[in-house]
Amino acid sequence: MACGHFYAAQAGGDEAFTVDASRVTFGRGCLAEVGDRVASHGTRRVGLFTDRRIRQLAIFETVSASLRKAGLDVVVFDDVRVEPTDGSFREAVRFANEAKLDGYVSLGGGSVIDTCKAANLYSSHPAEFDDYVNAPVGAGRAVPGALKPHLACPTTSGTGSEVTGIAIFDYVSLHAKTGIASVMLRPTEALVDPDCTDSLPSEVVAASGMDVLCHALESYTARPFVSRAKPGRPTARPMSQGANPWSDLGCREALRLLGKYLRRAVEDATDREAREQTMWAATLAGIAFGNAGVHVPHAMAYAVAGNVKTFRPSGYPQDEPIVPHGMAVVVNAPSVFRFTAPRNPARHLEAAALLGRDVSGTSSADAGEVLGKTLSTLMQKTHIPNGIGGVGYGDADLQALAEGTFLQQRLLQNAPAEITKPVLVDLFRGAMTYW
Amino acid sequence: MACGHFYAAQAGGDEAFTVDASRVTFGRGCLAEVGDRVASHGTRRVGLFTDRRIRQLAIFETVSASLRKAGLDVVVFDDVRVEPTDGSFREAVRFANEAKLDGYVSLGGGSVIDTCKAANLYSSHPAEFDDYVNAPVGAGRAVPGALKPHLACPTTSGTGSEVTGIAIFDYVSLHAKTGIASVMLRPTEALVDPDCTDSLPSEVVAASGMDVLCHALESYTARPFVSRAKPGRPTARPMSQGANPWSDLGCREALRLLGKYLRRAVEDATDREAREQTMWAATLAGIAFGNAGVHVPHAMAYAVAGNVKTFRPSGYPQDEPIVPHGMAVVVNAPSVFRFTAPRNPARHLEAAALLGRDVSGTSSADAGEVLGKTLSTLMQKTHIPNGIGGVGYGDADLQALAEGTFLQQRLLQNAPAEITKPVLVDLFRGAMTYW
Repeated sequence: MACGHFYAAQAGGDEAFTVDASRVTFGRGCLAEVGDRVASHGTRRVGLFTDRRIRQLAIFETVSASLRKAGLDVVVFDDVRVEPTDGSFREAVRFANEAKLDGYVSLGGGSVIDTCKAANLYSSHPAEFDDYVNAPVGAGRAVPGALKPHLACPTTSGTGSEVTGIAIFDYVSLHAKTGIASVMLRPTEALVDPDCTDSLPSEVVAASGMDVLCHALESYTARPFVSRAKPGRPTARPMSQGANPWSDLGCREALRLLGKYLRRAVEDATDREAREQTMWAATLAGIAFGNAGVHVPHAMAYAVAGNVKTFRPSGYPQDEPIVPHGMAVVVNAPSVFRFTAPRNPARHLEAAALLGRDVSGTSSADAGEVLGKTLSTLMQKTHIPNGIGGVGYGDADLQALAEGTFLQQRLLQNAPAEITKPVLVDLFRGAMTYW
Repeated sequence: MACGHFYAAQAGGDEAFTVDASRVTFGRGCLAEVGDRVASHGTRRVGLFTDRRIRQLAIFETVSASLRKAGLDVVVFDDVRVEPTDGSFREAVRFANEAKLDGYVSLGGGSVIDTCKAANLYSSHPAEFDDYVNAPVGAGRAVPGALKPHLACPTTSGTGSEVTGIAIFDYVSLHAKTGIASVMLRPTEALVDPDCTDSLPSEVVAASGMDVLCHALESYTARPFVSRAKPGRPTARPMSQGANPWSDLGCREALRLLGKYLRRAVEDATDREAREQTMWAATLAGIAFGNAGVHVPHAMAYAVAGNVKTFRPSGYPQDEPIVPHGMAVVVNAPSVFRFTAPRNPARHLEAAALLGRDVSGTSSADAGEVLGKTLSTLMQKTHIPNGIGGVGYGDADLQALAEGTFLQQRLLQNAPAEITKPVLVDLFRGAMTYW
């Protein structure tokens, strides 16, 4: 694998990879294209999904006006929760069924786009709610066919949900963070307009940028697709199929762009080039992880966010404690990559180099330390909390965090090494404080 | 633009780009996945398009058996011409209409895949033949909606047709090489199996590899998308939209892979890694040029192939004179890139470096010469003819070749500089002999 990026076949392993992407339109002002694009899919009655905050912004008016100008019937759903639950997904489905939609537009962050995916899924292919939910929480039933057209317009440079087939939610009664994963859920088109990020607080740009960075780093260091067992039937090959030559391309470019632009995008909201390139990195990393899958830092993030105590970061609503997703992911990252580096030192070093670190003369044995240090330095410069200690955890929480993380087997299986509970305790311990 | 690859907005120019790709499955043995994949689209009666030569090969049996195993009705069409014409397209459409297909599989080179696209188009959305043909030859009417599922299985590492929305043919009565271009024509899925290339003669690997190389080089040096006028409506943005950050990624990786593997793939049919990586480069370059567009070397190739006199290359059927497509393209390339280099010396130098040339200390003024020399050296090492002189042309042909090329305005408009007839005469003169 190393520097040539060539994947040699492994006995019993998969021999092929399957990748795709939504149609992507990228550029300042492209939100105004949404009406023409929705109409081109034959849609006449469109559901516009957003949240109450975004509904007050000029970008909502841009999208709404473009849809009406194209002669479409527009019905707005703005009741999206910041962290969707099975209950809020069900409400969105009820709305979609009653509104009799034949197309969807989502305008928002990952929560909005994921909610719209669920509404489209269950109204296009009605089923019991649990049917399509990932096993073992749900039945993991295959989505039987195509959904209605869905054009996703992300308003943060983060989740990449606009190009993935994944919808994440809290299953409240089961105390489980889980989701639905199917290529059928992937939005038909993504309209990625960097204008949306001009008004984002720098804290949000930093946290969502770190989510992007981890999408790229985790996809790049995931178990190689050739080491995953060949699926029983070809169409059962998972989207989280491991690192592959296609996702590698997006990962490397996203890392290069973030190394060059993320700090600038955080420090200066008027640096248009930096905010644009950070948004492009988010799309590329979304395409990459949508076809490779993330692993341990994201798995740990579910526990870090789910067990939050009193942490209330600036730049975010102060009404309840929250560890924003990207922050909950990246606080684990230096510790995890110190652990995974021996599995593929060349890739870990290359990642550090793409992020801007001079790695000349660095030995393979130092790859984890060098990448860990590169990450913690970038975290410090972008005012991310200092490890899980910085968001309120202490030694007494290690076991509970490890237990919570261990439930995320879908992600942990995509890691390049076996991840046991004791390993997770060690990883959280290593993530307590970085500087 | 230069090395940072950032595209700054230009007054009156387009501000966004729109890109997509077929779902791609890549890997040795993946042809056996075709039945399961076709069935997953709800297809029951599938047309299997191929040519008579391929129908005799084991790969045809693999595909046919996979389709039948999935319970599909299979109807075979093997009457594909090596260089399709309006007449051969019409025959394929007649076949598709009579066979009442609800899905398509193509197994072959660009001719087979393009013929299958045409059959799918006119049987899904019946129209006068000229309606969908590119203007000004045809009416250039927009394809009104989605076609039936089409899974394309390329058997050469060349055209990239499996991931593009383009179908090329000779309009015989008009003496014009033209085509049909629409995102709707893009195959639903591509199954790219490097096993197909194991039996290819080295001459075919060399010529088709040079086609790939030119897809990447031309897309990388095409006019930037920001310098193309903004379209009247968003969905009218052409696929040949010029260089953009998405196509750049595929171009750079394809060039890097070809620089490393093409000679090995040509010299040794048993070098599995080299043949695999050359095939992957072909797919990447196909995705790139399908979203950026090629320019002058491809435009010139139509005249070089169309005016062929007595040239009969080894490794190809000897029944009629032919300049294989990739050969007809690359013989023009060093001359063209010497001409275009001043428009963006950094990109031309970077391309030479990606192909393996040491460009340290090279000045911008030498970019064209260095890339031209890199290309002609690679041509020589892979036994490509020495310029257009090597395929039978002389000074007396310059004017006719320039006239023939000048008709290809769709391609010439995508060049980074104005291409007049006198410029074309000079370019052909510069392409006469390279060593």
